[in-house]
Amino acid sequence: MSSGKVIVYGGKGALGSAILEFFKKNGYTVLNIDLSANDHADSNILVDASKNWVEQEQSILEQAASSLQGAQVDGVFCVAGGWAGGSASSKDFVKNADLMIKQSVRSSAIAAKLATTHLKPGGLLQLTGAAAATGPTPSMIGYGMAKAAVHHLTASLAEKDSGLPENSSVLTILPVTLDTEMNRNWTPLSFISENLLKWTTESSSRPSSGALLKIVTANGESTITPQ
Amino acid sequence: MSSGKVIVYGGKGALGSAILEFFKKNGYTVLNIDLSANDHADSNILVDASKNWVEQEQSILEQAASSLQGAQVDGVFCVAGGWAGGSASSKDFVKNADLMIKQSVRSSAIAAKLATTHLKPGGLLQLTGAAAATGPTPSMIGYGMAKAAVHHLTASLAEKDSGLPENSSVLTILPVTLDTEMNRNWTPLSFISENLLKWTTESSSRPSSGALLKIVTANGESTITPQ
Repeated sequence: MSSGKVIVYGGKGALGSAILEFFKKNGYTVLNIDLSANDHADSNILVDASKNWVEQEQSILEQAASSLQGAQVDGVFCVAGGWAGGSASSKDFVKNADLMIKQSVRSSAIAAKLATTHLKPGGLLQLTGAAAATGPTPSMIGYGMAKAAVHHLTASLAEKDSGLPENSSVLTILPVTLDTEMNRNWTPLSFISENLLKWTTESSSRPSSGALLKIVTANGESTITPQ
Repeated sequence: MSSGKVIVYGGKGALGSAILEFFKKNGYTVLNIDLSANDHADSNILVDASKNWVEQEQSILEQAASSLQGAQVDGVFCVAGGWAGGSASSKDFVKNADLMIKQSVRSSAIAAKLATTHLKPGGLLQLTGAAAATGPTPSMIGYGMAKAAVHHLTASLAEKDSGLPENSSVLTILPVTLDTEMNRNWTPLSFISENLLKWTTESSSRPSSGALLKIVTANGESTITPQ
């Protein structure tokens, strides 16, 4: 069994829980960061959604340092996020844009920051974008803006001197529709977990750093296509 | 003289003041939205930076409705923004990313919302992006993320059913370096003001809606290149 360590940001959600339990089953020590604890995690850092971004960052960095005690991790996976729609004329346009930035951009940036501090050289940072946001999203403008920011973050982090450790990779998955309880018969969560484990353990199996990876399932077959 | 009306978001800054005064000189009634008043404006809406995004939006929408009294505007120009650098390992990465989103994304989204409410059919919404953010920005990751979000907002707003009025255009300028007091001998602010006036008055002179317009000055000659 591996004695590896990973951080899952959003490890209490549907996809995050699946990843967390899969890495546990494969011998990893898992640190969960989420609004509530996941009992399967070795340790949990709770995010206080009432705090601002910098306060959240400080609290998470302090708790991660204390939990890891100088140990480096093999992967930082950020699967926190959400969805809210609306065109610019929607009553809730700004409210939803704010929520999307809080859920996707804040978590992704803090995950990147954690990776600069705790990821080992050659490690993997994984973020979550959206296939829809590789083009215009007039009916869900806030969501598209937030995910476009995550895609841009990915591109910047893949460059030299981005702050990520040497030989590490950043990969951003663009799930189209996931097989959660509310959404049956689409990409199985295990498909993502298994790929994350492969990319974590065999760096040669990884797509190029900075890739946006569209994940589509059709006729029971899931495929990963760099955009 | 025109009896047109425009809104300048950021009309107390260097570029915003130049635009505001140029439109005043050309007979327009100008509503300024900024952290402090511009005495050349016909009316001012002050932004309270201590309020959250939704509170700012509500306050600005209420004051704009009260100031415009049902009148529609020919243009909404958003030139609010700022710059802060830092890679992901910078101590201030999250703090600066937060500031960049507040300065660029909040103002752009509220300007878009104002356009859905007060811009006349065939009117012009102008936003401000950044040429650098059309590619990765490892040394200024927060700035790049925020401007990428503005670029994505532009693309979404240019689509059908984005919420903008019929036949209106959204154009986003990507100034490379402007001729402000701290930054002499680059693109003159008057070049941007003059183009904005032309695009406002002659819709046939506008680049296609959704365009990101790189503005470069070399050998005293300024050019606009759609990206």
